[in-house]
Amino acid sequence: MYELPRYKNPVLVSSMDGVGTKLKLAVTMDSYTSVGIDIVNHSVNDILTCGATPIFFLDYIAMGQLLPHKIKDIVIGLSGACQEVGCALIGGETAEMPGLYAGDDFDLVGTIVGIVEKEEIINGQDIVPGDIILGLPSSGLHTNGYSLARHVLGESRQVLEQYYPSLGQTVGQALLAPHRCYFNDLKALLPMVKGLAHITGGGFSGNIPRVMPDNVSASLDTSAWNIPPIFNLIQEKGAIGRDEMYQVFNMGIGMIIITSQEHSPIFLRQLPHCAQIGSIIALKDEKRVILN
Amino acid sequence: MYELPRYKNPVLVSSMDGVGTKLKLAVTMDSYTSVGIDIVNHSVNDILTCGATPIFFLDYIAMGQLLPHKIKDIVIGLSGACQEVGCALIGGETAEMPGLYAGDDFDLVGTIVGIVEKEEIINGQDIVPGDIILGLPSSGLHTNGYSLARHVLGESRQVLEQYYPSLGQTVGQALLAPHRCYFNDLKALLPMVKGLAHITGGGFSGNIPRVMPDNVSASLDTSAWNIPPIFNLIQEKGAIGRDEMYQVFNMGIGMIIITSQEHSPIFLRQLPHCAQIGSIIALKDEKRVILN
Repeated sequence: MYELPRYKNPVLVSSMDGVGTKLKLAVTMDSYTSVGIDIVNHSVNDILTCGATPIFFLDYIAMGQLLPHKIKDIVIGLSGACQEVGCALIGGETAEMPGLYAGDDFDLVGTIVGIVEKEEIINGQDIVPGDIILGLPSSGLHTNGYSLARHVLGESRQVLEQYYPSLGQTVGQALLAPHRCYFNDLKALLPMVKGLAHITGGGFSGNIPRVMPDNVSASLDTSAWNIPPIFNLIQEKGAIGRDEMYQVFNMGIGMIIITSQEHSPIFLRQLPHCAQIGSIIALKDEKRVILN
Repeated sequence: MYELPRYKNPVLVSSMDGVGTKLKLAVTMDSYTSVGIDIVNHSVNDILTCGATPIFFLDYIAMGQLLPHKIKDIVIGLSGACQEVGCALIGGETAEMPGLYAGDDFDLVGTIVGIVEKEEIINGQDIVPGDIILGLPSSGLHTNGYSLARHVLGESRQVLEQYYPSLGQTVGQALLAPHRCYFNDLKALLPMVKGLAHITGGGFSGNIPRVMPDNVSASLDTSAWNIPPIFNLIQEKGAIGRDEMYQVFNMGIGMIIITSQEHSPIFLRQLPHCAQIGSIIALKDEKRVILN
């Protein structure tokens, strides 16, 4: 139960999602806290794109056989990530389903509910040509593209424990890096945000157009940020084309902010890791996202 | 997004749960609409015990390979059940996870959010000796006890397609009967309800004590209702003791209502299938639930 704070015209925003096949890597690495963090941070970012403040979170953990140490480590991740953003972890379900989950497999699903004043919903409708596109760095793949990454890099414990000087860590460590949360960075700045795109499944072309009016395009300068080495490794090993990389992965940008030229310097000053990565232009050749 | 209706002191009540191993039977019977109904009705009943009105529902469907006909049938169940109670089905996630779900296996999880005026929360604290216990019939096992039922009865298609005269249908039909929803029956009567127990996992002894003050017991007359034949079949085939049956299954009572002697006749008049099945007594020998 959650007693609602006072809002004039409260609108609830919710999202339910799973961690996806990143879970398979957690099983291989026998490391579960990071996926707990993942599902919370992924969910918080998802509803942040509407301007919502998270209020409560529920989790569902299903395993063939309930193993207390796994559940404990997942819950450490969940509860720590909830605490970071002042979100109540109010319950959920732990289900033992032998015969449905084989061996060490499990599923982890989360539901977040947040709240926003109706008048403060971010819907991208004020975005006009000339607006600035800012990017906030991701910590790695976050929670998307793992099927392709596992296919390209392999997924045995031996592969995951290989150290790469270019990564400065093992492949497994790079792939299990927890999804970064952008709520605390952005909450005070939300009144100056025109649009937010959480770069998840579908990458740049899948997520950016959804937050802009139909008559504009996003023109991005891909040299404006450093692509983390894990993406280069995947691209090289899999001989994957640039367009496909940007359709599957976040390529180092976890959240895109669209703001006015006037407000852009405030973001760049307040958020040291924020970079200008493009601008809004009038719709050109029906392409909504242009990668330069 | 869900714009909240006007409440004086709104309290949100939510629940997240899965269907459990009943899903295995749905796979064997290749019949998916009923489990869609199950997860909604189970969830609606769960938050109804606090007096909450459902406002929105989200679903998570995970499969090894997404099969459109299965998903369609599940969603028919979900959306029909949501419509029945005026609950918005606002979204969710359909996840394809090869390597995590084997063969035809899948998982189905739901989250419900409901709302109740703080002053109208049902918390059982007014329950006193002399109050009446009423029972509303279940439609079968609902969503609990399937691991034991499958173990006892078997779970091959051949077993499930066997017709039993005592059931008037096949075992599979009896086991897949959708979870009954009690919201529409009870919504107008909630002001007269002192306590509600949704008989799910843990049966009578697991669910009734949670909704009563510590100083009372529930004294039940198990001859006051007809136990549906599917439970007798399971009990006989498995040679299961009576106490265990009442700890695992709902035994034909899906929802228990605790009300005053004064209000009890109103429930019995308005709800034709409702029966008086016991009464509240002062705590006796530390037993919270007494089966006579």
